[in-house]
Amino acid sequence: MARFAPAVAKLISELGRLPGIGGKTAQRLAFHLLSVPEKNALSLAEAIVAARQKIKMCSVCSNLTQTDPCEICSSTTRDRSIICVVENPRDVAAIERMRDYNGLYHVLHGVLSPSDGIGPDKIKLQELIRRLQEHQEVEEIILAMNPSVEGEATALYIARLLKMSGLKTTRPAHGIPMGGDLEYADEITLARAFSGRSQI
Amino acid sequence: MARFAPAVAKLISELGRLPGIGGKTAQRLAFHLLSVPEKNALSLAEAIVAARQKIKMCSVCSNLTQTDPCEICSSTTRDRSIICVVENPRDVAAIERMRDYNGLYHVLHGVLSPSDGIGPDKIKLQELIRRLQEHQEVEEIILAMNPSVEGEATALYIARLLKMSGLKTTRPAHGIPMGGDLEYADEITLARAFSGRSQI
Repeated sequence: MARFAPAVAKLISELGRLPGIGGKTAQRLAFHLLSVPEKNALSLAEAIVAARQKIKMCSVCSNLTQTDPCEICSSTTRDRSIICVVENPRDVAAIERMRDYNGLYHVLHGVLSPSDGIGPDKIKLQELIRRLQEHQEVEEIILAMNPSVEGEATALYIARLLKMSGLKTTRPAHGIPMGGDLEYADEITLARAFSGRSQI
Repeated sequence: MARFAPAVAKLISELGRLPGIGGKTAQRLAFHLLSVPEKNALSLAEAIVAARQKIKMCSVCSNLTQTDPCEICSSTTRDRSIICVVENPRDVAAIERMRDYNGLYHVLHGVLSPSDGIGPDKIKLQELIRRLQEHQEVEEIILAMNPSVEGEATALYIARLLKMSGLKTTRPAHGIPMGGDLEYADEITLARAFSGRSQI
C-alpha cells in the first residue's frame, strides 16, 4: 500500500522542495501542519499567497517591496549620493540591521557566473547603469557583493564598467571578524586583514 | 524603517512557527518562496490547504487518512488478529516501510505524560478499548511506543489495562542496533540486549 495518503504525500513533496529541507524534515513538518489547529496551518498557506500577491520588485532599486518605489527609495531622509550594490534582498536586510548606513541600495538579484550561464543581462546591471545616468547626484558606489569567487568577479566587472564615469567605487573591508581568533583565521582572510591594516 | 515589508515579515513569522525552523532559516525560506516561479510557491500553499481539507482521522484506528476507514483498516489482506499500538502516524509510516508487519494499527496520538497534563482521556485509549470489545478476533497487541520514560509508562499502563482480557501483549525487542558497536552502546541498551538474549 502507499505509505502516505495522497494529500499527505503531496504536502511532504512540496515541503521537500524548500532549500535545506530533506525528506525526514519534510515529513516532520507535514505531520506538524496536520496536527496543529487548522487555523494555524491555513495562516501559513495564506501568508505564502499574500506575500506572492503583494510583494513586487521596486522599479528603482529592484529590492522586494510592498510599495513602489520602496520605502528606502522614497525616503526623504536617506543620503542619495551613495548607492550600495548587493546580491539579494537578504543583504539589504542585513545591512539595515547594523543601522549605520543611510544611503540607497541596488539589488542585483544574483552575481555573474558564466559556468551557470548567468551573464550581465541576467542580473539587474542594466538597471543600475540606467539609474546612474538618470541620477547625477550619485557620487559613490559601494560594491557589497559577498567575498566569493563570483561575488569578487562581479564587483570587479562593475568597477571596470564604472571606471570612466568618475564615480567613486568602494568595497567593504575584509579582515578578521570581531571576536574572531587570529589563530583560526584562514590565510586569505589574514592576508586581506594585513594588507588592509590601518594606523591607530 | 521596517526591515521587511509587512507581507514578508508575516511570511517569515509563519514559517518560524514550524518546528526546528529558526529565525534565519525562516528568512531564507521566505526569500526562497519569493524568488521561485509563483506557481511553485502557490502549490505549497495549495498542498497545505488540500491536506487539511482531505486528511481526517480513521474512525477505526485513528491514523491519518484520506478515506474512512483507512486503507489499512479496510484492506482484506491484512492480519486482523494483531494490532500494533503506536504513538503517532509517523510511526505507522516507519513500520510500513520495513514491509514485514501485516497486522493492523492503532494510533494513540500521544503518550501519557502527567507532568504535561496528558492523562488517559487525552490520547486515543478509550477508542482502543472499545475497538477490542467490538472485534473479538484480535489476539495480540504489540505495544510499540518509543523507548522513552513516557513511552514505557504508557506501554505498562495499557498492558495492565489489558491483563484481564486474556490478550497477548508484546513489546518490540530493545537491544544493540544493527551495525551498532557494543563499545558505544549505553548501559541501559546493553542491559536490555543481554536480558533479551536468544539462543542461536
